[in-house]
Amino acid sequence: MADIEAPLNYVREHRDDHQNELIEVLSIPSVSTLAEHKPDIEKCANWIADQLRRLNLDTVEIKPTGGHPIVYGEWLQAGADKPTVLVYGHYDVQPADPFDEWDSPPFAPEIRDDYIYARGASDMKGQIFAQIKAAEAMANHGGLPFNIKYLIEGEEEIGSENLEAFIDNNIDLLKCDFVLNTDAGIYSKEQPGITYSLRGLAYFEVEVRGPSKDLHSGRFGGTVRNPIHVLSDLINGMHDDNGKVTLPGFYDKVREVPAEERASIAALPYNDDEWKQMSASKALHGEDRFSTLEQIGIRPCLDVNGIWGGFQGEGAKTVLPAVATCKLSTRLVAHQVHTDIPAMLNAYMEANVPEGIDWEVRDLGGGPAASMDINSKWMKAAEDALRESYDKDTLFSPEGGSIPVVGMMQEKLGVDSIMLGFSLPDDGIHGPNERQYMPNFFIGIETYIRYMDKVGNTN
Amino acid sequence: MADIEAPLNYVREHRDDHQNELIEVLSIPSVSTLAEHKPDIEKCANWIADQLRRLNLDTVEIKPTGGHPIVYGEWLQAGADKPTVLVYGHYDVQPADPFDEWDSPPFAPEIRDDYIYARGASDMKGQIFAQIKAAEAMANHGGLPFNIKYLIEGEEEIGSENLEAFIDNNIDLLKCDFVLNTDAGIYSKEQPGITYSLRGLAYFEVEVRGPSKDLHSGRFGGTVRNPIHVLSDLINGMHDDNGKVTLPGFYDKVREVPAEERASIAALPYNDDEWKQMSASKALHGEDRFSTLEQIGIRPCLDVNGIWGGFQGEGAKTVLPAVATCKLSTRLVAHQVHTDIPAMLNAYMEANVPEGIDWEVRDLGGGPAASMDINSKWMKAAEDALRESYDKDTLFSPEGGSIPVVGMMQEKLGVDSIMLGFSLPDDGIHGPNERQYMPNFFIGIETYIRYMDKVGNTN
Repeated sequence: MADIEAPLNYVREHRDDHQNELIEVLSIPSVSTLAEHKPDIEKCANWIADQLRRLNLDTVEIKPTGGHPIVYGEWLQAGADKPTVLVYGHYDVQPADPFDEWDSPPFAPEIRDDYIYARGASDMKGQIFAQIKAAEAMANHGGLPFNIKYLIEGEEEIGSENLEAFIDNNIDLLKCDFVLNTDAGIYSKEQPGITYSLRGLAYFEVEVRGPSKDLHSGRFGGTVRNPIHVLSDLINGMHDDNGKVTLPGFYDKVREVPAEERASIAALPYNDDEWKQMSASKALHGEDRFSTLEQIGIRPCLDVNGIWGGFQGEGAKTVLPAVATCKLSTRLVAHQVHTDIPAMLNAYMEANVPEGIDWEVRDLGGGPAASMDINSKWMKAAEDALRESYDKDTLFSPEGGSIPVVGMMQEKLGVDSIMLGFSLPDDGIHGPNERQYMPNFFIGIETYIRYMDKVGNTN
Repeated sequence: MADIEAPLNYVREHRDDHQNELIEVLSIPSVSTLAEHKPDIEKCANWIADQLRRLNLDTVEIKPTGGHPIVYGEWLQAGADKPTVLVYGHYDVQPADPFDEWDSPPFAPEIRDDYIYARGASDMKGQIFAQIKAAEAMANHGGLPFNIKYLIEGEEEIGSENLEAFIDNNIDLLKCDFVLNTDAGIYSKEQPGITYSLRGLAYFEVEVRGPSKDLHSGRFGGTVRNPIHVLSDLINGMHDDNGKVTLPGFYDKVREVPAEERASIAALPYNDDEWKQMSASKALHGEDRFSTLEQIGIRPCLDVNGIWGGFQGEGAKTVLPAVATCKLSTRLVAHQVHTDIPAMLNAYMEANVPEGIDWEVRDLGGGPAASMDINSKWMKAAEDALRESYDKDTLFSPEGGSIPVVGMMQEKLGVDSIMLGFSLPDDGIHGPNERQYMPNFFIGIETYIRYMDKVGNTN
């Protein structure tokens, strides 16, 4: 095993510098969804590229896409016997509004009680920057231990719109043994954890139309179907009394989870009260016979994400509306195919929409579920690195959300993603007062050094 | 019977003048709900008062209210043996937007194919103005045949907000034998009709709250209740499989309609295809065992008028929303009490909202149902006047809509309203291209003369 004392010492000695640089990048409002921040997106891409240049890579480029650019870098001098690792991250952030709910301005980072508060602190400038600092320390103190490629995109928060085409056009360029996806977190401040599976997504807009124009609810009420009632009936019917989704065939490909995996999920630290607190909910609810962690980890689900129709203003308007619409999405687990879901939803509508009502299902896309081998050597290396940093065994947990890029990498490059990052569940990502726990940021840099070292020495 | 040839001849000779005056009043955009039209409201009230002054009444006044003024006039010189009739109307109109759906500007009246097109033509400047022209002709050619009072309000289209207080404060002033409510129509161009009952209304906003903040639908989907699902379940449960409303006690006070009345409803001209066309619907639907006309006439109903919650923008946002809300109203029939309904809705919510979900029912008001005696002498006089004008028997029909002032007059003054007006079902009130059929406008003036004469000669 190579000597990693040099890079570790280097990063320990430069914590203040790293913190100052983190403040610098968090001050750039690289909000990908707002056109007025286009210059900030470019500024941030350049800032990241400049950071990568300190690693003395073979090449660092800002590659244009149909939308925001991708920062790409590579160094392939480690030799053919060393693995090639593709580091993934994104430099764009969510919008920060509502601004008045922030205790300090979202793009003027402020440190309070060991946390740095800023949009993007946790999701995910704090993560990708920690990885870059680790790689910089190694590159300049002993050398990088494997062949490395960086793909840092600027559109993750708007659905990675141009990433798929970029991968398709650059399959050879991106060839690697696995992806180190730094858009990730650990279990709690002192408990290391790795997400080993992510749910897929299929998202729709469903519209039902009754009368071809809004009617007076007095003159016609009680004589024709109200599309809001029809939509409510349809939504009501999408779950049975046991909380199972009723779309025909929905569970056909859902795998029977081995008893061993269910046992490992049952062993994860969990309690209802904490989940209620995190979900800001007074009661929990889900599919019968599955625990909360199973429900998000190994079971698919369906949620209506939004609904609208008829009169929504102040006061009373006696309208019997022509149209009712909802946004609806399913979360999918391993083996379910996200492109199968539109046909299931259409079959459900076909069978349940009453006579005289028109309907349309609009497919708004989605992405595959992903499940990683927790026994791979790349995963074991991550487990070992985390144990050295935290002096605790790592918890492997399934995650309810979707990171489409993980499924995409599996599908297109044929490789797993190791989800190694240091955000915390209560960092408030996407909301006001997003933050990153600074001790974890510094431990994170060290852990990335240990991880890179172990991967470089894996046989 | 007095000689009515003189007033009839007078109005026949002055049709052009009356049409020009109608154009004048329809040119005033007296939109009650829009603050910028406050001067137009005042202009219109003055215009109406000037018209009333031509009747040589004892008094004509513009009476202030908490909102838009009421035009009041009275003439009590007919003698104690003559009835006192309170003529009701309103001079305000609905907003005209969307303007681009009008074929001619809504406040620049245009005559095409025997119709006059303008906002308020049918609802209801065309009606109250016809009555005033009839009374003017009689006042100046033989004298008014009974004691008359006018109450013409400026807030009907915004729920007659200040009318109830005005009536409460002026019970003696408004004392009468019955109300002649001119905010009414006939069955079809050549078929006279009178509405003898109106449904009541109780209107609500219902909010259900799950998580105290919006959640990520991946991270939490499948583990907590989604308030849109809960609201859909609640709406779904508000009707049973037979189309009956399930609010507890909802039908307790609904009267058993006598076979005779059901037979008279069955005899009204009706066919499904026409109803589908009028309601712009491909299929009809309602409570089992009742016909369409019974459903709007003698059966109550419940409709959701609007719904909203969660993400309603373009594209896909994976939110599990905190709140879902709907507007909901019930239409009530005679003997149901609109102020009973809030307790029923609350009881339904109490029984059906699942654990952990907060809810609130906001009462947005309503009004009583009204049912008039079709055998009263005032009603018979209207039937006779219509027969003389149209040479056809009058159809008495129940109406699905609500005119709160009718129930209010019954409740506070203890009198029936005779609904005598000449609008047509396809006049497009409240919508673009509102119109009034001019031949009916002129026949209407004559019919009001005949009706006033008959009422004055009733024993």
